[in-house]
Amino acid sequence: MSTNTGTLDVPALRARLGRAAEATGKAGADALVIAPGSDLRYLLGVGGGSHERLSCLLLPADGVPVLLLPALEAPGYAHLPLAELGVQQRTWVDGEDPFRMAADHLSGAAVFAVSDMMPALHALQLRDALGDARQDLAGPIVRELRMRKDAAEIEALAEAGAAIDRVHARMGEWLRAGRTEAEVRADIAAAIVEEGHLTAEFVIVGSGPNGASPHHEVSDRVIERGDVVVIDIGGPMPSGYNSDCTRTYSIGRPSGAGVADAYEILRIAQDAAVRAVHPGATAESIDAAARSPIAAAGFGEYFVHRTGHGIGLDVHEEPYVVAGNEIPLEPGMAFSVEPGIYLPGRWGARIEDIVVVTEEGHRSLNNQPHELVVL
Amino acid sequence: MSTNTGTLDVPALRARLGRAAEATGKAGADALVIAPGSDLRYLLGVGGGSHERLSCLLLPADGVPVLLLPALEAPGYAHLPLAELGVQQRTWVDGEDPFRMAADHLSGAAVFAVSDMMPALHALQLRDALGDARQDLAGPIVRELRMRKDAAEIEALAEAGAAIDRVHARMGEWLRAGRTEAEVRADIAAAIVEEGHLTAEFVIVGSGPNGASPHHEVSDRVIERGDVVVIDIGGPMPSGYNSDCTRTYSIGRPSGAGVADAYEILRIAQDAAVRAVHPGATAESIDAAARSPIAAAGFGEYFVHRTGHGIGLDVHEEPYVVAGNEIPLEPGMAFSVEPGIYLPGRWGARIEDIVVVTEEGHRSLNNQPHELVVL
Repeated sequence: MSTNTGTLDVPALRARLGRAAEATGKAGADALVIAPGSDLRYLLGVGGGSHERLSCLLLPADGVPVLLLPALEAPGYAHLPLAELGVQQRTWVDGEDPFRMAADHLSGAAVFAVSDMMPALHALQLRDALGDARQDLAGPIVRELRMRKDAAEIEALAEAGAAIDRVHARMGEWLRAGRTEAEVRADIAAAIVEEGHLTAEFVIVGSGPNGASPHHEVSDRVIERGDVVVIDIGGPMPSGYNSDCTRTYSIGRPSGAGVADAYEILRIAQDAAVRAVHPGATAESIDAAARSPIAAAGFGEYFVHRTGHGIGLDVHEEPYVVAGNEIPLEPGMAFSVEPGIYLPGRWGARIEDIVVVTEEGHRSLNNQPHELVVL
Repeated sequence: MSTNTGTLDVPALRARLGRAAEATGKAGADALVIAPGSDLRYLLGVGGGSHERLSCLLLPADGVPVLLLPALEAPGYAHLPLAELGVQQRTWVDGEDPFRMAADHLSGAAVFAVSDMMPALHALQLRDALGDARQDLAGPIVRELRMRKDAAEIEALAEAGAAIDRVHARMGEWLRAGRTEAEVRADIAAAIVEEGHLTAEFVIVGSGPNGASPHHEVSDRVIERGDVVVIDIGGPMPSGYNSDCTRTYSIGRPSGAGVADAYEILRIAQDAAVRAVHPGATAESIDAAARSPIAAAGFGEYFVHRTGHGIGLDVHEEPYVVAGNEIPLEPGMAFSVEPGIYLPGRWGARIEDIVVVTEEGHRSLNNQPHELVVL
């Protein structure tokens, strides 16, 4: 879900629309078709809703952008200064064929690119309406723009980071032996909203052996004394920008052998990776900086995922901090640095901060302590 | 987001997989490709996560279903009794081409159908990997199955209905003059989670003139004495099944002229539509039953949307209660009955219950009073 409560910066949005049209032409496409969601929010300041009826922004490389909407949805866009943005609006009602209307506006297009997150329900009907035109993905075009955040976007991410930090700071209210992961999850989810998020988009409570599964969400396992517990939480703020922060807790002294030593390796690795962030460093060099101390300590095979992902209007976006991604970091890029160590069947640990590349180096948007927090 | 906390009923899931394969063949397709989300949850009991890496269930009309997963995601599916379900698992790691792996398993397919909600990011890469095969939508095949709920599904919907009823019953705690819609929204969202939902998927607070926009979500408008306020709320339960319920409130006596009379027409219309629900009645006849009293009173042009939508693992699914949908209702179908009257620039009102078709007629899953609630 997205909402319309963010502030609209008309000159910034006009510039984004212009850059998107230019990038579309350079990529050899004739038009973008942008579905509701974060791409639309980036370009128009409103994400719209994702419903079964077709809403989209038709953005030609050359020509007038058209916002095509079901009449029912039009009021949700009525606050947009479309004339100032240079965008026309067309609406359709049940019984009309919106795919035909889109095809008419794009007539002559040989190549059109649809949002990566457009559902197949709409992408395939557009394909049929556009006949012989080639359908590509808009992701490679749009992500080049979205990956470089401006000052307002970075402040929105900083607000999100401060809000999720407040939730971690309160973890002792909820996380204790005798409760199930699901019970703890419900309390955390409520606090994520209380602290300013629109929704608790994800709440991972991975206790004991469940912590060794990086994408485990929650179960009815009862948390025990001595458990190590991975808490990975976040969600969207009213601005549309997301938080995402992981800390690892221990319920009393950890009962597993070697937890303290392995955790200290992880802490050193995460710190080294954050300190490696500066303009010109490659994304993969940050991954290597996290991986190297972990591998040197013999835990390399237990760090089973990439080091991080970009974040902004989506929780996962470019740039990905992963081996093979040779993109040089630039000021304004924002991403997670989140190495982990996962010992199957025993326990897991992860430390995650959102980091922004600055002219001087980096700025961390999460600032709770990195130590294993004993509750 | 979906979680894995629902109970798995192996014989029911086996039967669903078998019916889906059979329906696929009857529809002239060689295979379904089911993405994470509600279709996957319906067929396997787990919705998985929707991530940028390809996860899917490859379900041939004839042959062995394969669950194709990134190795990283495999632990989230480890609790599935895949052998009992007759499903094989294949995993891939970064650097492998999962689209090639999917195409290899479907080699020889002339027609394959992808989940309606599969993102274009995956649908277009599958298209490229499958070369000359025709790509269609799986929606028409899967919805025939999902539209008819079994007893366990109906109980899950009833639990969701009771949970959202408890939130409406508490509305007086939060909804009052002097607060913004956004402030009220945050409290309602927290209560939706407190009362048992996983997330507050949607919270519409439409006060005064904002209530006249059916899909308005929330704004910084300050609620005033005399406002009529539409509150439309819901979200998923741990079972995966959703709530969705609307009530209309008044802050003191409504200040607009004619509110009481118009609201009474709406109440009569919603009641008439619910009472019209029985096996054999068409979906469109329920729409007509709601529309007729509203039109007779001269408000026809202000009831600007269909009367309802099916509900289950998705908030919006088949059957749609709309003119032109001649499907005969059958026991086990569940949908909203939610007529509204919207006077542009002035106020709006809507009453929404989830109703299930029973052998005898219907059962309403929302049971808060239908009157305009004066707070």
